Amino acid sequence: MISIALDMMGGDLGSAATLEGAKIFHAAHPEVKLILVGKKEELSSEIGEIVDARDVVAMDAGPLEALKARESSMYKAVELVKANEAQGVVSCGGTGAYLSCATVRLRLIPGVKRSALITAFPTKIKGKKVVVLDAGASNENSGEEIAQFALMGSLYSKFVYGLESPKVYLLSNGGEEHKGSPEGKEAFALLKEDAKLNFCGNIEAREALSGEADVIATDGFSGNLLLKSTEGTAKLMSGMLKDAFKRNIFSMLGYLLCKKGISEMKETMSSKKVGGAMLVGVNGTVVKAHGNSDGEAFANAIEVAYKLISSNMVDKIKEGLSS
Amino acid sequence: MISIALDMMGGDLGSAATLEGAKIFHAAHPEVKLILVGKKEELSSEIGEIVDARDVVAMDAGPLEALKARESSMYKAVELVKANEAQGVVSCGGTGAYLSCATVRLRLIPGVKRSALITAFPTKIKGKKVVVLDAGASNENSGEEIAQFALMGSLYSKFVYGLESPKVYLLSNGGEEHKGSPEGKEAFALLKEDAKLNFCGNIEAREALSGEADVIATDGFSGNLLLKSTEGTAKLMSGMLKDAFKRNIFSMLGYLLCKKGISEMKETMSSKKVGGAMLVGVNGTVVKAHGNSDGEAFANAIEVAYKLISSNMVDKIKEGLSS
Repeated sequence: MISIALDMMGGDLGSAATLEGAKIFHAAHPEVKLILVGKKEELSSEIGEIVDARDVVAMDAGPLEALKARESSMYKAVELVKANEAQGVVSCGGTGAYLSCATVRLRLIPGVKRSALITAFPTKIKGKKVVVLDAGASNENSGEEIAQFALMGSLYSKFVYGLESPKVYLLSNGGEEHKGSPEGKEAFALLKEDAKLNFCGNIEAREALSGEADVIATDGFSGNLLLKSTEGTAKLMSGMLKDAFKRNIFSMLGYLLCKKGISEMKETMSSKKVGGAMLVGVNGTVVKAHGNSDGEAFANAIEVAYKLISSNMVDKIKEGLSS
Repeated sequence: MISIALDMMGGDLGSAATLEGAKIFHAAHPEVKLILVGKKEELSSEIGEIVDARDVVAMDAGPLEALKARESSMYKAVELVKANEAQGVVSCGGTGAYLSCATVRLRLIPGVKRSALITAFPTKIKGKKVVVLDAGASNENSGEEIAQFALMGSLYSKFVYGLESPKVYLLSNGGEEHKGSPEGKEAFALLKEDAKLNFCGNIEAREALSGEADVIATDGFSGNLLLKSTEGTAKLMSGMLKDAFKRNIFSMLGYLLCKKGISEMKETMSSKKVGGAMLVGVNGTVVKAHGNSDGEAFANAIEVAYKLISSNMVDKIKEGLSS
């Protein structure tokens, strides 16, 4: 039986949002056991088991703080995976705190140099996603670490999207081999020699969402930048679009006539739909939801964890790294 | 008299595009002397002086190659600034080649540690721009260099946009002081102590275009990433929008009804309108146009050079750095 531990307290919107998310997920997957970790008086035993936790790790808490807060919902939720009572954990708590807590308590898979956040982006090709890692678990990474991210990303793409030979790229400031950050160039040299991967070279941020790449590996600072600037630009353009439609009565009518297509576009660009990013490289399925996740976003993050557990992603990565 | 040297050969679209751009600019500013550098048989003496140059620096040429190509249009155009025959130069040639050529031949302003590409982005606030530097002149930068970019960016914002006390931020993976790349943290420590600047702390890529910041300083790799991913996302969304409007006869009618607002939005997001990025920190006005600039984009890049020369930007930066 699949069992998922949920940190119900860590997000910006508190337990009301996570509880709504858990309910949405439970309605779709009543067979999955949810373990709700948080202040018991705010939770509901109808949709899962409750584990009481009185403390909440603050959004801006550092790694040490999170590891010391043993009575927190975040720490206790991670511990459930360590104790094998759950196969995965989902939290919308602060990135630094949550990822350190998960990495230290669950430990890295043997051979993994650094864990990485892997997140999916929409592309120009309808329905096609590109996964990017590290999207912000680290602040800086060595070339060797980035090369290993490429491998883990390829395995993820293979088993989550069913691609036989995912096209793997390095994020760079130019397409040519001599371009890239110093660490990116190191990773390039390593990947070029790796026959296991379908390594296709450097890709510029401009082409990241073109649909050409299946996997883009980069250091955590750059990956985070890519993620956040995509979000920021999408937000800016959505606002402009809204203004364009609100100009006058004709443009409002115009909006009504093409509403369906516009909604689809918004849906594709919405970070809520993505739901959660996986922390790859640790012993257990660890999913990070957006800090300001509402019910829908949190439900989608639980869905991500569910899919990863069902497809034995952690074992697949273990096998892939040892072969 | 203002005189601007134009590398007519370096872009993807050849002299046809640059000639069109020069004509557009000349029509608007007949008082400005243009020096067209390139294959003389492809140029027109009606809009400016012609300097014959037989060689073209390839788009992917390295710095050394560009510096050796003394008969190239790029090298000769830069030399016109060195010889004081022009106050500024515009090229759509390869970034690496052009910027090295300009930096080596024109030299850095005394006290400048590294030159930087400064480029303007649209923001959520109508008509307001945010300038970002370094947008890709370097591959990596020290904290000290980034702190100096902040100062040069502030001077640029002050004199180009007339802001009294531009709000200066560092690009980071979080808003808090302890966030950022190692170099970003070094720059933070330096800027915090700098009373000359209105330093406001770290800003995430998600907020870069919100209109809060006037200047965002960062290393060249990250700045390039921000620039390119903004472009890529805008392109993706424009494509989606097009599809949304083309769904059926009603959505096409809808498009017609809100066409004006949509066109304005496209205009705001268009990299053609920005035209060119300035290389700050060198002795002379050096403007880099997009490699695939068409006539309109190249004309806008000449316009950028013209404005910078008119406002004595290079002298303002010299004064600002020495005070």
